[in-house]
Amino acid sequence: MKIAIAGAGAMGSRFGKMLQDSGQTVTLIDNWAAHVSQIQKHGLLVHTDGQEQIVKFEAFQPSELNFQQFDLIILFTKAMQMEGMLQDIQKAIGHNTKILVLANGIGNIETIEHFIPRKQIIAGVTVWSSELDGPGEITLTGTGSVTLQAVQPDDNNALFLQQLVTLMNNAKLNVTVSNSVIEAIWKKAAFNCVLNTYTSLISCNVGEFGAFSNRDFLIDNVLNEITSVAKAMKVPFNKQETLDLILSQFKPGQNGSHYASMYQDLSQNRLTEIDYLNGYIAKKGAEFHIPTPVNSLLTALIHCREELNQMQK
Amino acid sequence: MKIAIAGAGAMGSRFGKMLQDSGQTVTLIDNWAAHVSQIQKHGLLVHTDGQEQIVKFEAFQPSELNFQQFDLIILFTKAMQMEGMLQDIQKAIGHNTKILVLANGIGNIETIEHFIPRKQIIAGVTVWSSELDGPGEITLTGTGSVTLQAVQPDDNNALFLQQLVTLMNNAKLNVTVSNSVIEAIWKKAAFNCVLNTYTSLISCNVGEFGAFSNRDFLIDNVLNEITSVAKAMKVPFNKQETLDLILSQFKPGQNGSHYASMYQDLSQNRLTEIDYLNGYIAKKGAEFHIPTPVNSLLTALIHCREELNQMQK
Repeated sequence: MKIAIAGAGAMGSRFGKMLQDSGQTVTLIDNWAAHVSQIQKHGLLVHTDGQEQIVKFEAFQPSELNFQQFDLIILFTKAMQMEGMLQDIQKAIGHNTKILVLANGIGNIETIEHFIPRKQIIAGVTVWSSELDGPGEITLTGTGSVTLQAVQPDDNNALFLQQLVTLMNNAKLNVTVSNSVIEAIWKKAAFNCVLNTYTSLISCNVGEFGAFSNRDFLIDNVLNEITSVAKAMKVPFNKQETLDLILSQFKPGQNGSHYASMYQDLSQNRLTEIDYLNGYIAKKGAEFHIPTPVNSLLTALIHCREELNQMQK
Repeated sequence: MKIAIAGAGAMGSRFGKMLQDSGQTVTLIDNWAAHVSQIQKHGLLVHTDGQEQIVKFEAFQPSELNFQQFDLIILFTKAMQMEGMLQDIQKAIGHNTKILVLANGIGNIETIEHFIPRKQIIAGVTVWSSELDGPGEITLTGTGSVTLQAVQPDDNNALFLQQLVTLMNNAKLNVTVSNSVIEAIWKKAAFNCVLNTYTSLISCNVGEFGAFSNRDFLIDNVLNEITSVAKAMKVPFNKQETLDLILSQFKPGQNGSHYASMYQDLSQNRLTEIDYLNGYIAKKGAEFHIPTPVNSLLTALIHCREELNQMQK
């Protein structure tokens, strides 16, 4: 299968590496010129448990893409860059191309529908993690899993979905199919609303956050507001399962030393996905007249951090 | 007048320097051994507008104090260390000693009353600022003022208050007497609930905070809760005046490059006064059944930062 990873940052590169290791042909597409150029010239430098490995990839900026089309495009583009990325790679999307969206945040499927019919979209969530150390360099942390669902199931994409699960499990990505991917997307988003946002604001890793005495108070404040907003929007959201998932990250042997992607975004002076996480909850809360003081405050504070990065540039 | 500064950190040292420059005899008392030892051996290094100056002081740790008593003890001790400091220097408090409390935070007078009659206590607030660069070293930033009031006015302390105002104004401390010192203490505390807490959390200076697009939203969130709690407690609190004071800090020519004391506390791995600022609002809010989600969250986040410092020590 001809696979492209659109948005080949920490997570995209990790998936690219694992898929290529399993024998697939993978093309990395990213807008970060220095990152793409480094991979083109020297390959991707991958750190795993203190070991280093160079992985060769076909890598392009969207503007460098030839008229090749892909069987599968895995979208790891950040939520706020998704529309732009899809516009830039439109010529690489054929009539039979499937798009698997694994990017964080709520509301991505609505964006993708502008570019491809619903039945060609696979929605997914993942709790794999990874860190982008610099151009062409990532560190793999911990283990994870992936949950997939066709956005509009039919016989054709049911078959494709089966192939995709097999292909991704050959790459040891721990993939299962679920009938509740929207719920899973909300669960993942809520997970990130808690761990991404708090650890970025406090400047700590996941393990350190798990050791704070106010941890449960902080988690509960965010999840309670999400629960109320989800209820008003009639979206299935299971607070307890989300809480369990969050708490599981603090167990010994989990990737406690992992710094969340938002922390990495801020460290690298990039914009964060806050508007598609806590900011989305705050926005929908306002729409549905649900008070969201905590998510609103956290959103504003992260935006301050983004602006501070710009000021200090 | 025989003056002691108890709690001779950034602000205490600044006041000590300005008072001594005006001809007073000032003793610095502090619990930080390295700071006291540096001042004893080499004097206090004071940076002002790029200039350096060494200022000699009599300096002691509380345990080193002889049986000398002071006419005036100016308390700049942090709120959470006030009780301990007063216990340690009890022998230096005579029948005629007056205590001027200029420390930040709400609830200090109640602590001091355990050690000295109310009529010997002068309460004050100040918006002077200063930075502690290290043991025996401070940087003076911007200008400020002081507002004073006898906690229990009588003829005796009215006379003393007049002397004190003259003495402090000779030291160019811009002192005025007010009949609304509790209101002023709340105003100062609210000022710190906003600027200290947010700038510490965002890791920015006051000028940078003033330039954030979400600045007014963030300020309003904190002040609205304080207004509700003050109303429930029947404490006079003027939101608009507090807001004006905060906004005045962002004007060009103000000390925009100033890092708040809480930021300095966290940088130096010290505990903050958060429980006597936003934490006090949250605690009183809970007592009076006033929702304070914003001040509660900010308190918890600052405590996380304190704990993180301990973890990374």
